[in-house]
Amino acid sequence: MDKNYWITKEPINPGDCIDKVVRNEAGAVNTFMGTVREFTKGKRTLFLEYQAYVPMAEKKLEQIGDEIKEKWGNAEIAIVHRIGRLEITDIAVAIAVSTPHRADAFDASRYAIERIKEMVPIWKKEHWEDGEKWLGDQKENISYEAKIPSKEEMRDD
Amino acid sequence: MDKNYWITKEPINPGDCIDKVVRNEAGAVNTFMGTVREFTKGKRTLFLEYQAYVPMAEKKLEQIGDEIKEKWGNAEIAIVHRIGRLEITDIAVAIAVSTPHRADAFDASRYAIERIKEMVPIWKKEHWEDGEKWLGDQKENISYEAKIPSKEEMRDD
Repeated sequence: MDKNYWITKEPINPGDCIDKVVRNEAGAVNTFMGTVREFTKGKRTLFLEYQAYVPMAEKKLEQIGDEIKEKWGNAEIAIVHRIGRLEITDIAVAIAVSTPHRADAFDASRYAIERIKEMVPIWKKEHWEDGEKWLGDQKENISYEAKIPSKEEMRDD
Repeated sequence: MDKNYWITKEPINPGDCIDKVVRNEAGAVNTFMGTVREFTKGKRTLFLEYQAYVPMAEKKLEQIGDEIKEKWGNAEIAIVHRIGRLEITDIAVAIAVSTPHRADAFDASRYAIERIKEMVPIWKKEHWEDGEKWLGDQKENISYEAKIPSKEEMRDD
């Protein structure tokens, strides 16, 4: 993968992100991974399904990287988000940020995951034992119960 | 490696730490890596040398893990620190923390690196173009210029 911001259908190897940000000027690398948790508020998840509008999602991930470089100066960033069916413990998203000093690496990595959940067009379908539901934006402020993402929004090519 | 807290002479693969903490109950994994930076305050580092009192260092890393479990409850932790000669960009330390939710993973990972630098008996020798120096505790509050760690303190078996 020659990009620093990408969507994939394959299992995520966090080392792919880490390798892209390790460099002579960095003394600190922070990596955040979101993994599929079995229980949420007492309800058992069987598996998740993610869909994205891929070109826009990759563009938005890159925008988040640019925001971080703007805010923290000397930072390098790589972000990958997986789509398709994910099983419990699978990595859905991995972020790696390198900076000269550690405080910035932590802060920028945290910023990245909050921004991803706010603004990247990736939809999640929860599959439980007793049903399933499309969730809207990942902060769950918008519900997609009424409005399932359109085929156009979900296309992953 | 069957331990969650260990000292190694081999290159660190952060995936080894990540694999130890990924689990059904976790929705978040934070990984912090300290890497060898080329320039510090304008001075070029050629390479670093780390020595540790290994049994005590591993015991202290485990203590930090216990402190995190106490403070954050549902957390799993793995920490590895490398010793010996490290080149620029090599990983000196890797920490992985998994928790159900992301705020705790970030906070606990940050706590771990601060505690490592405070209390784990690992000594660092900086090699510059124009000299070398043993540094004391990793927060550099204690200087080892007068007192180079004894052979007993530095033994790495």
